Amino acid sequence: MERPGPRPGKRFVFVLCDGLGDRPLEPLGGKTPLEAAETPNLDEIARLGVSGIMDPIKPGVRPGTDVGTLANLGYDPYAYYRGRGPIEAAGVGIKLRPGDVALRGNFATIDDRWIVIDRRAGRIREGTRELAEALSERVKIPGVEVLFKEATEHRLVVVIRGEGLSDKISDSDPGATHEGEPVRRVEPLDDTPEAARTAEIVNEMLRQAHEILKDHPVNVGRVKRGLLPANAIITRGAGMVPDIPPIGSLYGVRGFCVAGESTIVGIARMVGMDATIPPGATGNIDTDTIKKAEVALEALKKGYDFVLISVKGPDIAGHDGNIEGKMEIIRKIDAMVGRLLDEVSPDDTYIALSADHSTPCSVGDHTADPVPVAIAGPGVRVDDVTRYGERDAAKGGLGRIRGVDLVPIVMDLMFRTKKYGA
Amino acid sequence: MERPGPRPGKRFVFVLCDGLGDRPLEPLGGKTPLEAAETPNLDEIARLGVSGIMDPIKPGVRPGTDVGTLANLGYDPYAYYRGRGPIEAAGVGIKLRPGDVALRGNFATIDDRWIVIDRRAGRIREGTRELAEALSERVKIPGVEVLFKEATEHRLVVVIRGEGLSDKISDSDPGATHEGEPVRRVEPLDDTPEAARTAEIVNEMLRQAHEILKDHPVNVGRVKRGLLPANAIITRGAGMVPDIPPIGSLYGVRGFCVAGESTIVGIARMVGMDATIPPGATGNIDTDTIKKAEVALEALKKGYDFVLISVKGPDIAGHDGNIEGKMEIIRKIDAMVGRLLDEVSPDDTYIALSADHSTPCSVGDHTADPVPVAIAGPGVRVDDVTRYGERDAAKGGLGRIRGVDLVPIVMDLMFRTKKYGA
Repeated sequence: MERPGPRPGKRFVFVLCDGLGDRPLEPLGGKTPLEAAETPNLDEIARLGVSGIMDPIKPGVRPGTDVGTLANLGYDPYAYYRGRGPIEAAGVGIKLRPGDVALRGNFATIDDRWIVIDRRAGRIREGTRELAEALSERVKIPGVEVLFKEATEHRLVVVIRGEGLSDKISDSDPGATHEGEPVRRVEPLDDTPEAARTAEIVNEMLRQAHEILKDHPVNVGRVKRGLLPANAIITRGAGMVPDIPPIGSLYGVRGFCVAGESTIVGIARMVGMDATIPPGATGNIDTDTIKKAEVALEALKKGYDFVLISVKGPDIAGHDGNIEGKMEIIRKIDAMVGRLLDEVSPDDTYIALSADHSTPCSVGDHTADPVPVAIAGPGVRVDDVTRYGERDAAKGGLGRIRGVDLVPIVMDLMFRTKKYGA
Repeated sequence: MERPGPRPGKRFVFVLCDGLGDRPLEPLGGKTPLEAAETPNLDEIARLGVSGIMDPIKPGVRPGTDVGTLANLGYDPYAYYRGRGPIEAAGVGIKLRPGDVALRGNFATIDDRWIVIDRRAGRIREGTRELAEALSERVKIPGVEVLFKEATEHRLVVVIRGEGLSDKISDSDPGATHEGEPVRRVEPLDDTPEAARTAEIVNEMLRQAHEILKDHPVNVGRVKRGLLPANAIITRGAGMVPDIPPIGSLYGVRGFCVAGESTIVGIARMVGMDATIPPGATGNIDTDTIKKAEVALEALKKGYDFVLISVKGPDIAGHDGNIEGKMEIIRKIDAMVGRLLDEVSPDDTYIALSADHSTPCSVGDHTADPVPVAIAGPGVRVDDVTRYGERDAAKGGLGRIRGVDLVPIVMDLMFRTKKYGA
């Protein structure tokens, strides 16, 4: 017997907006920025689809971007999140091996008593590649290999590779509120010999790095120009690569990610997606969202059937308490979705709108407020919701779901899930 | 102080419709079969009760009927599902003991190279009892007892009883898409000696079964009449009986199940319910739903206070993409509930409508789409929903719950749950 339509769609475009959710704001007459902004294209997804609200992790848990994004991709962060280091390593293109310990780091300026003068070495932007190369070449620690790779601006990634390591070690970075204090000695965080050994390796690495960096020509040049030298590194977020099943192995999809910053690229690569930061895409409100839409459309044409578009801007505006800025980036996201809808139809493609967490302008930081979600595409149980916004979504047919539910729900709509039982 | 009414009800009738949930269908103008069919009695339950949507397992997980039904009865399948074999064994009336390994099987036709000519032995329907009896009598394997019991049509159940067995063994049945291939050698699925031994036992059992069956008078007769002989058995779904607490021990209820097929009977028995397939009840659209209602009413009169009525038909129609058939069986379920309401009142009895999973006509297989639920009875927080359908239910007062939640919710309404804490 022939089956009636509509048949399940074959592709999925996932628009994930960092920090999109908000709270009612007095200057907006009690509306949220998403409720106040004109968003005809986002509303079209809600109108054609099914809406709901979503706790990225669970109610009352305030997510970081890393765990919120992992959860939005269907991976339980309690099982798969092993610190920021491995994500940043993947973001800068290092292929981690099982057992590697990855750390985030900053190039920093210290004095001769190891007091941190500037955690960002005068916000150094140039020469970090040469510095990282010098470190990779010259840091020598018996029994392990140490890799250094520059990241955005003053940031870098350090990878310790060898047998018998542990990521249960403390940070050497004293943190933003402790500038003027010494670089912290790295300590083991549990009683294993692996943690003790790894802490010692990182301390020795920090010592050698200072020796190598302090006289490096890049720094000699900086001092001559009156700039702070990048004469040390400070580390945080040690983690080992999680044993994470690639998204292709779970659902048979080919994943591609269009992002504005390397953390999202790192998470995407960690779950087996290809990823890019297109020219013009940034992690801020000034990002070129139309370019992002076009790169996503190209990826679909190349045969990727799961395309994630991440937009960081709403989170930045939320952190800054910048209501106008948040509405501006929301309008730019709306234009991006409009550009997608020029070439992609919910008649054969699933389009979902979501967020990794809320960053209310009234708070200036991430909160656990649920985020609005909407899914359009063949076969969804279209509901009455006609606006994409926090409170409209709460009336939708999805009810209240969790971050890890969204991708499985869409993969089931695509008939890509395995049956449990018989 | 005297308590105001209504007092909690004392009985629960649970109507569980296999594969009932669906997706919007083009031939129905975007309605689902449940939304499109006239269902005054189902709607009455929704009108008098509280509605919601339910993920049988969790969002995005596509349930089989076995795990979906276990979950609907309040048992977490991740804890209690041990494969289909034990369920089928219970379905045909074998009382399994702890340590028994039960397998589903087919009578099949193989050639002298053990190539599977027909996985169903020409859909044999007669003589399987004699064949199973011959096997139980004549298969001899040192250290274990082997029981054979015929099931519906070409199916049977095999039980290996003895010490030191394991259910971690592969299937000998090559599967529907591999007819024309040899019977598979059963292999251990882990490194334990128990799995290796059990695999060897099953292989030896298959060898002896062929020797016994090939010259059995039933098969000699079949060949004479030009029918394929049931000259072998093929096995799948090995499992051991789970250590599952009877529903009576959890809530003090006496459970009875009215079903149309042996799988549901097996699950009901496994959780300690009595169960029957009444005359006229089938696993298809042609089932006599009025008879089922009458048998359920008799069970209530006999003192059973938890009566499950399972109707398989919607699943069959969904698998076939048969919209008209799905609407027909839905109308028959509606008439069944009408018959129940002739004699049972939600003033003193809980009546719940649910499903083990969705089987959308547009997909032709189980999906993870949530199913609609409605619960009527004394004290429920009656909501605004007046129709029993996927999208009406989503607006109901229950919100979005999980399969394992439903029975505990009703048992709590009946004041049959234990207090947690003090």
